[in-house]
Amino acid sequence: MGFDLLKGKRGIIFGALNDKSIAWKVAERAKEEGAIITLSNTPVACRMGEVVALGEKLDAKIIPADATNVADLENVFKESMEALGGKIDFVLHSIGMSLNVRKGRTYDDLDYNFLNKTLDISAISFHKMLQVAYKMDAINEWGSVLGLSYVAAQRTFVGYNDMADAKSLLESIARSFGFIYGKERKVRVNTVSQSPTLTTAGSGVKGLDGLFNFADTMSPLGNADALECADYCLTLFSDLTRKVTMQNLFHDGGFSNVGISERTMELYNKGFGQE
Amino acid sequence: MGFDLLKGKRGIIFGALNDKSIAWKVAERAKEEGAIITLSNTPVACRMGEVVALGEKLDAKIIPADATNVADLENVFKESMEALGGKIDFVLHSIGMSLNVRKGRTYDDLDYNFLNKTLDISAISFHKMLQVAYKMDAINEWGSVLGLSYVAAQRTFVGYNDMADAKSLLESIARSFGFIYGKERKVRVNTVSQSPTLTTAGSGVKGLDGLFNFADTMSPLGNADALECADYCLTLFSDLTRKVTMQNLFHDGGFSNVGISERTMELYNKGFGQE
Amino acid sequence: MGFDLLKGKRGIIFGALNDKSIAWKVAERAKEEGAIITLSNTPVACRMGEVVALGEKLDAKIIPADATNVADLENVFKESMEALGGKIDFVLHSIGMSLNVRKGRTYDDLDYNFLNKTLDISAISFHKMLQVAYKMDAINEWGSVLGLSYVAAQRTFVGYNDMADAKSLLESIARSFGFIYGKERKVRVNTVSQSPTLTTAGSGVKGLDGLFNFADTMSPLGNADALECADYCLTLFSDLTRKVTMQNLFHDGGFSNVGISERTMELYNKGFGQE
Amino acid sequence: MGFDLLKGKRGIIFGALNDKSIAWKVAERAKEEGAIITLSNTPVACRMGEVVALGEKLDAKIIPADATNVADLENVFKESMEALGGKIDFVLHSIGMSLNVRKGRTYDDLDYNFLNKTLDISAISFHKMLQVAYKMDAINEWGSVLGLSYVAAQRTFVGYNDMADAKSLLESIARSFGFIYGKERKVRVNTVSQSPTLTTAGSGVKGLDGLFNFADTMSPLGNADALECADYCLTLFSDLTRKVTMQNLFHDGGFSNVGISERTMELYNKGFGQE
Repeated sequence: MGFDLLKGKRGIIFGALNDKSIAWKVAERAKEEGAIITLSNTPVACRMGEVVALGEKLDAKIIPADATNVADLENVFKESMEALGGKIDFVLHSIGMSLNVRKGRTYDDLDYNFLNKTLDISAISFHKMLQVAYKMDAINEWGSVLGLSYVAAQRTFVGYNDMADAKSLLESIARSFGFIYGKERKVRVNTVSQSPTLTTAGSGVKGLDGLFNFADTMSPLGNADALECADYCLTLFSDLTRKVTMQNLFHDGGFSNVGISERTMELYNKGFGQE
Repeated sequence: MGFDLLKGKRGIIFGALNDKSIAWKVAERAKEEGAIITLSNTPVACRMGEVVALGEKLDAKIIPADATNVADLENVFKESMEALGGKIDFVLHSIGMSLNVRKGRTYDDLDYNFLNKTLDISAISFHKMLQVAYKMDAINEWGSVLGLSYVAAQRTFVGYNDMADAKSLLESIARSFGFIYGKERKVRVNTVSQSPTLTTAGSGVKGLDGLFNFADTMSPLGNADALECADYCLTLFSDLTRKVTMQNLFHDGGFSNVGISERTMELYNKGFGQE
Repeated sequence: MGFDLLKGKRGIIFGALNDKSIAWKVAERAKEEGAIITLSNTPVACRMGEVVALGEKLDAKIIPADATNVADLENVFKESMEALGGKIDFVLHSIGMSLNVRKGRTYDDLDYNFLNKTLDISAISFHKMLQVAYKMDAINEWGSVLGLSYVAAQRTFVGYNDMADAKSLLESIARSFGFIYGKERKVRVNTVSQSPTLTTAGSGVKGLDGLFNFADTMSPLGNADALECADYCLTLFSDLTRKVTMQNLFHDGGFSNVGISERTMELYNKGFGQE
Repeated sequence: MGFDLLKGKRGIIFGALNDKSIAWKVAERAKEEGAIITLSNTPVACRMGEVVALGEKLDAKIIPADATNVADLENVFKESMEALGGKIDFVLHSIGMSLNVRKGRTYDDLDYNFLNKTLDISAISFHKMLQVAYKMDAINEWGSVLGLSYVAAQRTFVGYNDMADAKSLLESIARSFGFIYGKERKVRVNTVSQSPTLTTAGSGVKGLDGLFNFADTMSPLGNADALECADYCLTLFSDLTRKVTMQNLFHDGGFSNVGISERTMELYNKGFGQE
């Protein structure tokens, strides 16, 4: 593929870790579509061989940053504008992590320091990124900023834990800041609510296999994968979607609007659902 | 129970067929809470022994009507006001039927005459009821009108067929007319989106058992039954909810906001979900 | 512009009337993006000089049809496949009309024959189109079908009248049929909920100017116009959005998620809102 | 009024400050409906004459607590159970505060320490309250826990600032914990999304008058006041709503589902909306 959809555009991709990452696919596809980009991730991630190799392959500067640190984010925008030769046109925020999930603390036994970190890393970092860019006036008119969300922001999924709350907060920030950024600078801000994806980050969620299978069966088109998500993100970075803002956009094979599928109904008709 | 919650109020209950009907339970409970009521249903239903007996038990006049017929509806309001001695305070619309479902026409093979009937009986009748009452000025200030809906108005449930579209239309009518009736006469209009309920009408839906079991397992509080639905309707008829209008209110044990439960996750982890 | 985004694709555009129409812009832009198309509209519209000229300009066969007539729709798909040399990849349904609006019948004084026509023309025609295409197997895998909606399907807009109910029904049909068409044939079905647009059809809505101005002021990016809507539709017809289905997608400059803007707040602070 | 709707029930009311507070009205009305209650607020608030007087009037023990402090919350439940003679049946969380709002930091210039406090006080305190109660097994089966929200959780209202994000988080917590508490102990958890209310807390929001007037004009039934909100909360504490859980319930005179009213349309038709 390659439509030159992002020709001449400059982007920053946060969160590419390995070739399973959605951010990784977005970086590769953005390049194919004619964009020039920088990559950012935590200092530890930025030293990984795979990330270094991606940077080389895509001719993309890698700029380490703790996304919860305002000064680090300022540096990412500053260095990106220098490296790319101008203001930024698109930004992907693909960052999320829950220590409660990692440490096996269930939602009725949350550690509140962990919760604060979950929210800071997975949601407030999005506000920080937007506020930094806004104050630095680092994004061009009709620029596009995307965060990645999940339908757990709307409905409860066992095991998704405090990440559900983080995603609700993330989507709210997209709306709240999207209003201001749109009104004042014509920059759009949206979230893409993606199918469960077998990324390294996702694999930390307990029972992800069950969730993945359930979603895949419920969705008439099956789950969307990381590459498909990247393609969708490109359309939202392009000039063809200039008036889409403050939205949470489901990219999930239809899952979000399915109540019950034949397969699930059969299972429950056979009594498998009885406890 | 009995709080005199509807003391002195006059109501019309459409759609009580037998003691499994939600409308039946609403009629009984409304009486217990101090209301006086009339009952309406199709001429055929009104001749059934059970309905006649209910009318006698509750001292409620039974007024036959085809709910798609404006003149019939005018008569229901006229006779009800006469029988009850004044304007009406609350109305329950518990009416729905799909010939496509009954005749086994799937959603990709709809008969369009049947679809028109589905919409007329299950949704447009609600508009007719409201328009008739509004033109006759038959409902007191702070009166309350309720329709019964189902979450299929928001998400797709296999087998629910064109009733899903009818419920979407019904909820839209509640909003659209609720605005006018609220603004002009301070009457509120809402829909209650109820758990799958094992009523006579519901039992026509193919695979209802599977749906019922699935919903019961997914809902943290289990499915709501007809009597619980009646209790909830009473609160919405009472003076304690005067500023609730134009809403679709889920009464479903939590189902509408659940994405996946432990039980479903287990099933899919075990691979039952694989096709 | 021109990315060859729809290169090699075959489309049918329903509802292009003149150069203010969204469908007109979609037709022009689809052609620019490499698609070949046919156009359909009512027999009266198809005889208009502008439509004939558009057909010539775009090298697009014009196929008259009453979109509420199943046989006519069958003919559109049949002739389109013949003219374009194969199965269809994308369809735009841009059809809507309310006699209640045209004849000045307010929502509390609806003519029910008119309401039936509103629903048939504006919503049920979408089901007919989908069912016809499905039965004829006229759409390729990963094809895309779009209807045009409006936020009145979610919230009440004075003067939008029974078109609000029609749009709710339309969106429900997109979900209901989208499930089946996705599951069985990998075809996606969505609606785009567009800003108020100064089309010939739109201008029939009473007070559209006020609505247009209000929406434009409330939306951080301002209203989306017909050309921008066309661009957005193209992305949804393209292969970059294959896993988006059963969705209602707001293309409205942010309007749908704005509660109050500075400008509106100022007006009401000054007391203009007092009645 | 007085239906004995809460006869024999034990409740805890957080956040009653003065007779403009929603929590204050809930406390008074709960007592009238036959409940016995305790009151909790910050130590400073608990020393205020009005709060002390309310406690005396309602024969309600006042238990000071910082709602962000787990130990304090444990103490509230412990002392409440002792004072009331058993497990709790209902809890009202009416707590919210934003230092960013108070200190005039706009949403594009947030202080992140303030944001953390906003979230902790206004939303995470709800999780802490639920987790504490759950671990102590302090709430009876079919108990009911309510938080107070605002439609800014769904749409952006200029000036509502980071409280919008806090309310989104609050509603998410209600869903997430509601699932667990429902499944394991049959306790329901909901939020009430209330009209703008002229409470002491609300008056800190910049431009509240404009917001209040706008909402009042848009809502067909006008804004809901604090007493009406209290009445509605009572129904949700009662046994008549046992199967309602994980919901956000709009109590707003219809505002949430209104797009534009006659009055607003007139204003914009007259060109007041032009900038």
